[in-house]
Amino acid sequence: MRIGVLTSGGDCPGLNAVIRSVVHRAVDAHGDEVIGFLDGWRGLLDGDHLELDLDAVSGILARGGTILGSSRVRPEDLRDGVERAKGHLRDLGLDAVIPIGGEGTLKAARLLSDNGLPIVGVPKTIDNDIAVTDVTFGFDTAVGVATDALDRLKTTAESHQRVLIVEVMGRHTGWIALHSGMAAGAHAIVVPERPFDIKELTERVGARFEAGKRFAIVVVAEGAKPAPGTMDFAEGGKDIYGHERFAGIANLLAVELERRLGKEARPVILGHVQRGGTPTAYDRVLATRFGWHAVEAVHRGEFGRMTALRGTDIVTVPLAEAVASLKTVPEERYAEAPTVL
Amino acid sequence: MRIGVLTSGGDCPGLNAVIRSVVHRAVDAHGDEVIGFLDGWRGLLDGDHLELDLDAVSGILARGGTILGSSRVRPEDLRDGVERAKGHLRDLGLDAVIPIGGEGTLKAARLLSDNGLPIVGVPKTIDNDIAVTDVTFGFDTAVGVATDALDRLKTTAESHQRVLIVEVMGRHTGWIALHSGMAAGAHAIVVPERPFDIKELTERVGARFEAGKRFAIVVVAEGAKPAPGTMDFAEGGKDIYGHERFAGIANLLAVELERRLGKEARPVILGHVQRGGTPTAYDRVLATRFGWHAVEAVHRGEFGRMTALRGTDIVTVPLAEAVASLKTVPEERYAEAPTVL
Amino acid sequence: MRIGVLTSGGDCPGLNAVIRSVVHRAVDAHGDEVIGFLDGWRGLLDGDHLELDLDAVSGILARGGTILGSSRVRPEDLRDGVERAKGHLRDLGLDAVIPIGGEGTLKAARLLSDNGLPIVGVPKTIDNDIAVTDVTFGFDTAVGVATDALDRLKTTAESHQRVLIVEVMGRHTGWIALHSGMAAGAHAIVVPERPFDIKELTERVGARFEAGKRFAIVVVAEGAKPAPGTMDFAEGGKDIYGHERFAGIANLLAVELERRLGKEARPVILGHVQRGGTPTAYDRVLATRFGWHAVEAVHRGEFGRMTALRGTDIVTVPLAEAVASLKTVPEERYAEAPTVL
Amino acid sequence: MRIGVLTSGGDCPGLNAVIRSVVHRAVDAHGDEVIGFLDGWRGLLDGDHLELDLDAVSGILARGGTILGSSRVRPEDLRDGVERAKGHLRDLGLDAVIPIGGEGTLKAARLLSDNGLPIVGVPKTIDNDIAVTDVTFGFDTAVGVATDALDRLKTTAESHQRVLIVEVMGRHTGWIALHSGMAAGAHAIVVPERPFDIKELTERVGARFEAGKRFAIVVVAEGAKPAPGTMDFAEGGKDIYGHERFAGIANLLAVELERRLGKEARPVILGHVQRGGTPTAYDRVLATRFGWHAVEAVHRGEFGRMTALRGTDIVTVPLAEAVASLKTVPEERYAEAPTVL
Repeated sequence: MRIGVLTSGGDCPGLNAVIRSVVHRAVDAHGDEVIGFLDGWRGLLDGDHLELDLDAVSGILARGGTILGSSRVRPEDLRDGVERAKGHLRDLGLDAVIPIGGEGTLKAARLLSDNGLPIVGVPKTIDNDIAVTDVTFGFDTAVGVATDALDRLKTTAESHQRVLIVEVMGRHTGWIALHSGMAAGAHAIVVPERPFDIKELTERVGARFEAGKRFAIVVVAEGAKPAPGTMDFAEGGKDIYGHERFAGIANLLAVELERRLGKEARPVILGHVQRGGTPTAYDRVLATRFGWHAVEAVHRGEFGRMTALRGTDIVTVPLAEAVASLKTVPEERYAEAPTVL
Repeated sequence: MRIGVLTSGGDCPGLNAVIRSVVHRAVDAHGDEVIGFLDGWRGLLDGDHLELDLDAVSGILARGGTILGSSRVRPEDLRDGVERAKGHLRDLGLDAVIPIGGEGTLKAARLLSDNGLPIVGVPKTIDNDIAVTDVTFGFDTAVGVATDALDRLKTTAESHQRVLIVEVMGRHTGWIALHSGMAAGAHAIVVPERPFDIKELTERVGARFEAGKRFAIVVVAEGAKPAPGTMDFAEGGKDIYGHERFAGIANLLAVELERRLGKEARPVILGHVQRGGTPTAYDRVLATRFGWHAVEAVHRGEFGRMTALRGTDIVTVPLAEAVASLKTVPEERYAEAPTVL
Repeated sequence: MRIGVLTSGGDCPGLNAVIRSVVHRAVDAHGDEVIGFLDGWRGLLDGDHLELDLDAVSGILARGGTILGSSRVRPEDLRDGVERAKGHLRDLGLDAVIPIGGEGTLKAARLLSDNGLPIVGVPKTIDNDIAVTDVTFGFDTAVGVATDALDRLKTTAESHQRVLIVEVMGRHTGWIALHSGMAAGAHAIVVPERPFDIKELTERVGARFEAGKRFAIVVVAEGAKPAPGTMDFAEGGKDIYGHERFAGIANLLAVELERRLGKEARPVILGHVQRGGTPTAYDRVLATRFGWHAVEAVHRGEFGRMTALRGTDIVTVPLAEAVASLKTVPEERYAEAPTVL
Repeated sequence: MRIGVLTSGGDCPGLNAVIRSVVHRAVDAHGDEVIGFLDGWRGLLDGDHLELDLDAVSGILARGGTILGSSRVRPEDLRDGVERAKGHLRDLGLDAVIPIGGEGTLKAARLLSDNGLPIVGVPKTIDNDIAVTDVTFGFDTAVGVATDALDRLKTTAESHQRVLIVEVMGRHTGWIALHSGMAAGAHAIVVPERPFDIKELTERVGARFEAGKRFAIVVVAEGAKPAPGTMDFAEGGKDIYGHERFAGIANLLAVELERRLGKEARPVILGHVQRGGTPTAYDRVLATRFGWHAVEAVHRGEFGRMTALRGTDIVTVPLAEAVASLKTVPEERYAEAPTVL
């Protein structure tokens, strides 16, 4: 068999581990040939690729990033390119394509699959927002990086007697905020799923100071928003202080909490450091298993599906299910973090 | 309500996180009182305890070890002590006991539960050998520590053109060896579930050198053994070289592989470093959730059970099921690590 | 003897290690008594203190922050408080005070020393800006944290084909930028000592892309500024885009480089994570040695001096020398980082 | 100019950083050409080499090991090979050779230099045993790895109420033991420079238990030995228990301390993990500076010398001085670690 693999969308620790595992399983166990398309869907649309043998994937297991490069392609480009992609598959003699990517990538994968391309997807997201899989690789590393930072920030907040507002990734879901906040013992966790009331948040943090504590750590997902009517934003993407949205929710909260509490409050925005670098052992094992099982699914002809973790098993599920909805933090998980608003 | 908590058996990263979570949930959400028995079951048998309020568990979330101490008690001591334990519970006005421990602890918990004590267990093992839960806290940290070490050893093995035999924990099961070996890309993984044939192992490692590679990493679980008839051990706990068993399977394999391959081979025994120190974010979250749900189970009167992870949910399962069998590495998981013997 | 110790100024990994070492050496070797003033100079002015015996410093060696708390006191408050401080020393029967702090703290220490108080200072700065000592504790940890982040950011910049502008600490000096940039192989390093020309910086980064590379990492110290006349800033603390200075130099550079290069550029501001958390082994050893030698200096009556590292030796130097000038990055050190502007 | 570079002796974090820095400085700043000899001196004797351009050293800065490979060559082989080496230098048109290595390598470098080869050495040792330089790269990483392990072991020793005997590297010198022991707050440190008296060590550790503590950590350098007459060893490389020397001093001490103290004692041998993997930021900066200055020394024609750190400066010193004696832990450094025997 000949199999193509590509990585698409935002960076995520574990991409290289999947690529390596696909090559190992396909080449070593099945005698397949594997090629890698460059820069995600663009490579498939342009037929831009390289051969992936065992040597090509040597030493990449623990490396962040992706040796194949990545890019974001607009869905309309992909729609117009279906025939072109099919042509490249034919010309290259490919029996299957394994795209590794997040929600957008999997939607694109479904489109191509619906148009007859033989596809087995591998889900990827540091945000943990893909439904039908318990979790994907990248999330554990992101949470680990955020937790390490929170551990460090705690001691400095305590010594300075400050409120630190730490912004972590998560535009639509609060999983990284929830898990890193629980892991580091944050005193409040603010997530997009639950628009916050600034008065409630102020009271909660204030109560801590009244109880004699001298510092507080608030973890906030980048996509967190105030509940309608509780806080006024000006038009045009600027907040009431004239800050660009660019400056982040943590900056806004720092200004507000300092003003309302009369305590020094400082923002910290962890940023891209959460999606780079060497993956945790957990993510490497999961990524390796996903690659292994994607190849097996290809050999069983299970197209139009993607790998998923269910308990301790790797299964495959229809791409259609995977992209039907975003996995958000449910109420009962909030409840477990006593500090969540 | 008044709840007692204790930690028993070998050290495991995350014990303090469970203790803290039990206290937080019980005291903060339910208005309960919590006491901690010292040094595991011994504290329960002797009534030796301390009060655990919110201050007592401040700052322990990320700390390894257990603030309550631990010990190993012989089952017969516990059997004889059932009435004494009941008496202490009565005297202390306790409504429930939450023992946190591994297989031995959970067996003891079942014994006490069968004798009428109100018990909700929390499973703990770095070895991942407890059935009926997908995983417990401590395992992820142990795998992470072993993987970090393997990452380091790989570059030194390569520079020295050596075979390194790395012994990880796992007396009866090979989970740490399997996961750390997969995560670090080991070239052979030897587990207790599959007695090894030294000739097969030599061939596998030798094939790597024949293919032009200049080093190899073999991960071996401490409990790994040669297949009967494949390698002769002398009597009295000594191997054929007269080494004490104390010296470990890695030493034996290093001697054998060096002799058979004609390549320099060196043993590395990771040892207790795998069960100490700050837990990973994954383990802190899981430990915190276990503590939270154990308190809830107490309030629902679900005694004779223990917390367990199933997929992404925390459930409770009967203690009887939990201790019925050891969770070993199944055949299909071996297969995923192409290098496993 | 009775010795007082205090920590003052911004947080810095290793403060607790010094405190512990002072107590160990003083109490254990000399039979001294030690007290700790709370919240820096404030504690000395108010006589607010606690006894520090061996138990009080148990387990703090590897912990970030300071068990004594810290604060910033205005010099004029201290000037007015000299007599009060003297009174507290008399009342508490103290033979010496060991203040641990940065430039501001050491200036205050000199003031008190000139007024007759028996003082031995210990220098502390993550910025490495204190003259007359090769380095102080805290710097190595800050550089390590920044380097870890840069390692992670490199893989994500590469996968996204981006320019990442990473802002590290350093208001007046570029030591953290220089060392972390060298350690991580940054492609340009911008420091306060050398006002940058945005055109030159753009050319340098652009040259990298022209040479076929697909990403770049720019490390910038928070205090970096454009060379006069090379870039226009509006009045009132806002840049030409209307961003508050608050938003940081990295944000400004990201906007400028993206506009000029036509490449996606993103800012990352590492922030307080650089000054919190567990110190590196290097900083723990240095902090421990400083504490040890400060006590010895007290016993030798070497007042008005502070500890300093010279090569591998710990010596004492006059406070007057220590605060005479800031240690900036010299020209010959720039030259070693081929990428420094 | 054409410059050859090679790495020789045991693995050491930072070797790749030196190689990269030599190439960067030579090729980029001076327009030189650089070749790398494979497997240390062997490559020079056999003329076995590869071209090192900027691409060849891309991405290796943070990687452990050496892309050039290493080996140990017997001095007599080198002595016989002087003319052969000279011939290769002539044939390859080399103006200088930069060998990177430890004591043995530098002795060989001196031999070749005395025979007229144009050599600038770069010192390398995780053991910190090279005189005339304050420190070399590799040591900081080794101490960091050992300290991380000790941090983890402390919590598990405490929970198990055990004595842990942790063996770190250092055949002839106790620097790693001293620094990691100080950094982690070990309760006793045993170094080769000071043969130990087992009775004294037992008393010291025992005193800790008598004072109510429940655990102890002893750090021992692999080369530590009992003081003559204080402990009997059998002949033939075996100790009195019949253990091979192979088993290590930690095993011996664990047996002895358990027997004498009546407390559970366990050995942990950290092993090769101390010399592999990614270097600390400190070591990367030092290695990069050494590479830079070695190239400058070549261009100044300063042959027969090696780079050295003096305070914060990189200087060059005669190879003859560098290999005249081993740098051992002096008395006054022992004294700073109150626990050193």
